[in-house]
Amino acid sequence: MDSQGFREAATATIDEIIHYFDNLGSRDVVSRVEPGYLRKLLPSEAPQEGEPWADIHKDIEAKIMPGITHWSHPGFHAFFPCATSYPSILGELYSSALSGACFNWICSPAVTELETVVLDWLAKMLGLPPCFLSTGPTRGGGVIQGSASEAILTAMVAARDKYLRETLPRSTSGNRSEEEDDENAREEAIALKRSRMVALATTLTHSSAKKAALILGVRFRAIRVRAEDGYALTRDALAAELARCRAQGLEPFFLAATLGTTDVCSVDDFAGISAALETCGAVPKPGQPGEVWVHVDAAYAGAALVCPEVQRQTNIELISRFHSFDMNMHKWLLVNFDASCFFVRNREWLVQALSVNQAVYGNKASDGGLVTDYREWQIPLGRRFRSLKIWFVLRSYGVKGLQAYIRRTIKLGEEFADSLRSKPDLFEIVTGPSFALTVFRLAAKSEGASLQERNALTRELYDKANATGKIWLTSTELDGRFAIRLMTGVRTTQKEHVETAFKTLVEVAQEVMRG
Amino acid sequence: MDSQGFREAATATIDEIIHYFDNLGSRDVVSRVEPGYLRKLLPSEAPQEGEPWADIHKDIEAKIMPGITHWSHPGFHAFFPCATSYPSILGELYSSALSGACFNWICSPAVTELETVVLDWLAKMLGLPPCFLSTGPTRGGGVIQGSASEAILTAMVAARDKYLRETLPRSTSGNRSEEEDDENAREEAIALKRSRMVALATTLTHSSAKKAALILGVRFRAIRVRAEDGYALTRDALAAELARCRAQGLEPFFLAATLGTTDVCSVDDFAGISAALETCGAVPKPGQPGEVWVHVDAAYAGAALVCPEVQRQTNIELISRFHSFDMNMHKWLLVNFDASCFFVRNREWLVQALSVNQAVYGNKASDGGLVTDYREWQIPLGRRFRSLKIWFVLRSYGVKGLQAYIRRTIKLGEEFADSLRSKPDLFEIVTGPSFALTVFRLAAKSEGASLQERNALTRELYDKANATGKIWLTSTELDGRFAIRLMTGVRTTQKEHVETAFKTLVEVAQEVMRG
Repeated sequence: MDSQGFREAATATIDEIIHYFDNLGSRDVVSRVEPGYLRKLLPSEAPQEGEPWADIHKDIEAKIMPGITHWSHPGFHAFFPCATSYPSILGELYSSALSGACFNWICSPAVTELETVVLDWLAKMLGLPPCFLSTGPTRGGGVIQGSASEAILTAMVAARDKYLRETLPRSTSGNRSEEEDDENAREEAIALKRSRMVALATTLTHSSAKKAALILGVRFRAIRVRAEDGYALTRDALAAELARCRAQGLEPFFLAATLGTTDVCSVDDFAGISAALETCGAVPKPGQPGEVWVHVDAAYAGAALVCPEVQRQTNIELISRFHSFDMNMHKWLLVNFDASCFFVRNREWLVQALSVNQAVYGNKASDGGLVTDYREWQIPLGRRFRSLKIWFVLRSYGVKGLQAYIRRTIKLGEEFADSLRSKPDLFEIVTGPSFALTVFRLAAKSEGASLQERNALTRELYDKANATGKIWLTSTELDGRFAIRLMTGVRTTQKEHVETAFKTLVEVAQEVMRG
Repeated sequence: MDSQGFREAATATIDEIIHYFDNLGSRDVVSRVEPGYLRKLLPSEAPQEGEPWADIHKDIEAKIMPGITHWSHPGFHAFFPCATSYPSILGELYSSALSGACFNWICSPAVTELETVVLDWLAKMLGLPPCFLSTGPTRGGGVIQGSASEAILTAMVAARDKYLRETLPRSTSGNRSEEEDDENAREEAIALKRSRMVALATTLTHSSAKKAALILGVRFRAIRVRAEDGYALTRDALAAELARCRAQGLEPFFLAATLGTTDVCSVDDFAGISAALETCGAVPKPGQPGEVWVHVDAAYAGAALVCPEVQRQTNIELISRFHSFDMNMHKWLLVNFDASCFFVRNREWLVQALSVNQAVYGNKASDGGLVTDYREWQIPLGRRFRSLKIWFVLRSYGVKGLQAYIRRTIKLGEEFADSLRSKPDLFEIVTGPSFALTVFRLAAKSEGASLQERNALTRELYDKANATGKIWLTSTELDGRFAIRLMTGVRTTQKEHVETAFKTLVEVAQEVMRG
């Protein structure tokens, strides 16, 4: 493909993208293809000779689009949003042209430096305490990760390394052969210590916490959170689990706290967590060697912190007592997937855990310690130019534009919950609205309706509403209760779309109730 | 930004990208900014009000471009390439518009299914044994990872899980409380076993192997590879290390073998590795419970397997004895970063190690086991639509187009090495040319020149050649010898650019030799 061919193809693609967004509502939200549909439509081998763009292009609408589920569709109420916006697409476009594996500063200084600057911008917008700024008092800072899963994994690796460093300090004998013996003894001690370490989370923590523990090969305990506590981790529950672990000879080193759980958007009690760690006695106090690292997973709801009222509601300033924080701009803040923004109170914790040198990566700027090499803050080596799309979005919308968007979509959630409440004969709210997410189920058909019956009928409502093709809902299970999640955070979702969703739900619910 | 604003901005961006590529050679390869340049140019906070695109746009050329190192520059001879091409940019453009967190099949069936199809295409093109195909006899298959680091980490996690499963089989008593006791006992046994496990690599294996072991928290041993073996891992060296580990009470479970090491593009001896594992007696034979998982890291040089002659030279069919294989299309195969293509002989190994369920992700297609959910094949949950750019590149270039590109750039490397050989008074080849990479140093000034002196002079050559701004070289150190790497794999690099690079090197070398 030469320059002219690219100009024509790309210009047409731009028009197609605009047309796609302008007419998105007329498509079904979820693809209706059958498993295996695409293999039947494509050859079993790559072509020997290159094909003209026209041939490739016609396959996009014909073969790919039927297999697309539209995450920017106004009727997309499933999971959490996965964002896109015009300024963000422009960011991806530049980034793909400037393609580089920017693992070190010198590999493109702008890639590193813009990332540091925009993550400081973001930290300030979200009201994070200054300790998470690159210019802050504790040498903190932010780094873009691919996903919240990678962020929690990175946090857990750094936490384990910090814990081992603090609880098994390195001796320095000065004698070479003694040092070798020491190294062997230390490797043994580390291996044994690792086998006692346990990471904590709750039963509503995102599954990425368990997956991270699995990858690290450390033990994992999920503390049960209860409806009566708003599905939040409390001081007492944490203190009890810390004591239990200690009694079993285990060493808690990491806790995943959540701001906006996936199932119900509950927020763990930050003050309670802090108090439990200060006072329970089972673990070293915060700030002492061997303290428990607290990571705050705010993957989705963290976006709402752009609004000062949310900063106040969530007591976000309390996270200065914790160690790391992560939120995904690619969920609810109009930046394309992937842009998980991970902040740490002391960046040395990452570098000490993840730095692995290789001669070929040496260069004056890195060796002189003058610059940030983000490869030492993350699992992979290479990295894309992802700060560009963040920069474009922050500048195009401005803080006020983003606040307006968040408030508008939260309000849609509240209006939807109001609508549910207006039909108590049909619906019961299980949790929320919280951060534009409402979790509900079908009302009981009769006084004595069994849990199984209600679950079955709610599932019928869920399946039939989704089968209309006009909306997409996801479900969860809370203490044995099957429930439906409806999220109103997608950029294209407007008041009328939520009204249509509610109307659909009412019609289907009436049908289900009638049996 | 509305539709019209996006159309204007994006159309102008397309023209800019074309202009960028057409005039890339006139820029310096490496950015010359000083650390911290960008913070001085940008405000310390995000704007409150949205800004017009024109204001954002003018900052790109003024503030960002000076901080860019140009990986597609014809004078980029550093590291390995990081690709881009017009069809690939189109793939990124569509992908950013169709943004979704496609962790499950239903989240966009086309995203999953196109990935399966194009990775099968790729496996066939590369001559991988059929066991790595999704349609192959062993239920293998490919998955796109973000980088080779994530691929080796994923492989190592799966290998540890497989090893533990095979060496600590689960008992089934049928009695509930006995089972709980068994679970606790099993957790203890696993924790202890993990502390004995060791991952193996070589001193020239990419640092991502060590980083993966660090993340897993398993022991790591790097086997020394020697110049006289062409810096390849041999049968004897592996057998000796396996025996040594066993003698120390350690359990080797993983070996990273390399096709094209970062420093010198050496290729480990696959037949020798296979023979050592079959016959050394220190570990269970391949196919037996507790066998050593062999991962082949072909991140860069794997691309050359599109040429049948390279498939023959490397005996690639031997990897059917191994467990996983990874190569980056985003290095030397014209697809934008990121596109690391990871293949495994049995996909169940990944799913068993990485599957973590959460109610909210349940859906009929997944629950019915009819589909692939790639979230179970990788570290993160969400994923971008990356197969699109691979599909576009494979179809636009065709197999023959890609072969022609690889052969052309390999030939450039051979011509460069010939040029070096034509000046034995100035240069000495240390290794290569191998896969378009030549490693060389300055010739000895006199018979008795010391290693330190030669290193210092070679470093002077290296620094001064890079200071011209017209080329970018990286360096390595081999057995104490400082050496320069020159790679000719970038898409825009033509014969005249390599000639210019050589001319520059001759001039600078003469200057350095004169003192």
